[in-house]
Amino acid sequence: MRPSPYLSWVQFALNRSRGERGTEKDRLEMEKTRDFKMLDYNVPGGKLNRGLSVIDSYKLLKEGKELTDDEVFLACALGWCIEWLQAYFLVLDDIMDSSHTRRGQPCWFRKPKVGMIAINDGIILRNHIPRILKKHFRGKPYYVDLLDLFNEVEFQTACGQMIDLITTLEGEKDLSKYSLPLHHRIVQYKTAYYSFYLPVACALLMAGENLDNHTDVKNILIEMGTYFQVQASDDYLDCFGHPDVIGKIGTDIEDFKCSWLVVKALELCNEEQKKLLYENYGKDDPTCVAKVKELYEALNLQGVFAEYESKSYEKLVKSIEAHASKAVQAVLKSFLAKIYKRQK
Amino acid sequence: MRPSPYLSWVQFALNRSRGERGTEKDRLEMEKTRDFKMLDYNVPGGKLNRGLSVIDSYKLLKEGKELTDDEVFLACALGWCIEWLQAYFLVLDDIMDSSHTRRGQPCWFRKPKVGMIAINDGIILRNHIPRILKKHFRGKPYYVDLLDLFNEVEFQTACGQMIDLITTLEGEKDLSKYSLPLHHRIVQYKTAYYSFYLPVACALLMAGENLDNHTDVKNILIEMGTYFQVQASDDYLDCFGHPDVIGKIGTDIEDFKCSWLVVKALELCNEEQKKLLYENYGKDDPTCVAKVKELYEALNLQGVFAEYESKSYEKLVKSIEAHASKAVQAVLKSFLAKIYKRQK
Ligand SMILES: [Mg+2]
Ligand SMILES: [Mg+2]
Ligand SMILES: [Mg+2]
Ligand SMILES: [Mg+2]
Ligand SMILES: [Mg+2]
Ligand SMILES: [Mg+2]
Repeated sequence: MRPSPYLSWVQFALNRSRGERGTEKDRLEMEKTRDFKMLDYNVPGGKLNRGLSVIDSYKLLKEGKELTDDEVFLACALGWCIEWLQAYFLVLDDIMDSSHTRRGQPCWFRKPKVGMIAINDGIILRNHIPRILKKHFRGKPYYVDLLDLFNEVEFQTACGQMIDLITTLEGEKDLSKYSLPLHHRIVQYKTAYYSFYLPVACALLMAGENLDNHTDVKNILIEMGTYFQVQASDDYLDCFGHPDVIGKIGTDIEDFKCSWLVVKALELCNEEQKKLLYENYGKDDPTCVAKVKELYEALNLQGVFAEYESKSYEKLVKSIEAHASKAVQAVLKSFLAKIYKRQK
Repeated sequence: MRPSPYLSWVQFALNRSRGERGTEKDRLEMEKTRDFKMLDYNVPGGKLNRGLSVIDSYKLLKEGKELTDDEVFLACALGWCIEWLQAYFLVLDDIMDSSHTRRGQPCWFRKPKVGMIAINDGIILRNHIPRILKKHFRGKPYYVDLLDLFNEVEFQTACGQMIDLITTLEGEKDLSKYSLPLHHRIVQYKTAYYSFYLPVACALLMAGENLDNHTDVKNILIEMGTYFQVQASDDYLDCFGHPDVIGKIGTDIEDFKCSWLVVKALELCNEEQKKLLYENYGKDDPTCVAKVKELYEALNLQGVFAEYESKSYEKLVKSIEAHASKAVQAVLKSFLAKIYKRQK
């Protein structure tokens, strides 16, 4: 992930034991295969925030003690597992959303000779995770907890996808169903579990903790993940951010997404404005999109967001400082700092 | 699966503990959800051979001892896990193959309001498996082995799919790549692991066995699964069987499948016949299909198959009788009897 001592993703792709160096022949053998090409296309290239969070969190849990090479290796392995999980979700999500680009290149299923085979490629990406876990963690006392954790988080994410997909189903578009609790459920399940809770939970397991004793940590991270989603490109920046800053053009309005902005607008608008929303939301026409954005501005959603933001920040700080362990507080605060840096 | 004392799939769908009866309200609540509809459409309706094999095998391993209710329940739970695994594979396979029907009804992704959401539905089907395992097996000494087993088998199956999909890739059609070892690898990975090895491996784990001591059982079952595939609709019957007996119309020839028949034909044909094969295999035109079938008859593939069949049968009987445990022999022989009954 980072240059030395962090290990390259290839090492994990080759499913190699620590110490084993792997001959050039091994690598060439693998490069020839489709598996390698597919991993190489889909796994690296992201910001690696999720993967790196495992290592950062584990360091903080060790309270400044120098990590052994072994610990760095294992934390990296878990970090890559999360990146692979994400790659799997994204490959399939792009097919379901008929997307065109991802991370500045065509979506994997759009590549020549791929098409619907991408579904199985996604499954193979996912299947590398238990292989990595078995290879490197089989003897650890927390091995079974790791398996349970990845299974739980995958299920939550798939449920989030299901709610999201059903909500935006063609022919079922119905703004009256959109509400803050629905929005909350979608982002919580679809993103917060695997992006925020999973890296910290991995670090906690490595540190010998029992996750059943850490439901408060889970709740705080899910809350942060939800805020992150509201603030991030998929909601707030999607509409107000500059496309050249956020690197992609948001289409939440066109896509009839149950975004924080639209549920807030529904909450705050008068009858006339509601009519305008119903008539223009979810249309691919730029005039309609512009009308929705104007309404958002008229309702001062930027201001409403700023207030939501500071309140959620205060609330999170309070919850974090209520935690008994200083080391855990440090982990949670480092996440908070990363998120709130984004929009400054 | 079977009527009482076998439990209905709904019980597992509701993810209910033993003893809990589940109110009508629970059931109605669940029926309203998409999850239920999707499970109901895709999980039951098959022949349930794989699921029932867990119970049958476990009984044989217990050598006639009466099973407790608890044991029956657990064997059923594992049986349903295998059925759900299969449902997940089939839902996705039908999308990748652009199929139209499955088990006499439209493929799930062809249903109104489903479409590509079927990908996520497949994932959710799959995710129910670790949930069932966690709910009912978390405290068992073999829990971690069950998780590893299901992970291993899913990976093998996904690899089999990959080889199959790449082999029949549009624009890459090349008969010269087709060979018996390639055919063997496809059917072994794609079907034999989850259909033959998995049910017995589940029963062995329940009986307290260590799977590392049973690689011979694995090899025999994989071998049987391979024979089964050759003989079953996807190969032999696909071409010679009557569609009203086997319940579906085979399209291996049209689909350019690497079937046992085509690799045998390639092995036995002269130059002229080879030319005919190259010109007519993998075309959607009924005239071409007829020519390929004529060639199969000219090469007496029915006779070649009959010989392959009796040899493979003898070989399997010999391997089975070499096994030290009479109980394990009984399990393997019951599989053998089931398969060879098919074409009598
Ligand atoms: Mg998407
Ligand atoms: Mg999506
Ligand atoms: Mg968006
Ligand atoms: Mg198919
Ligand atoms: Mg297929
Ligand atoms: Mg077929």
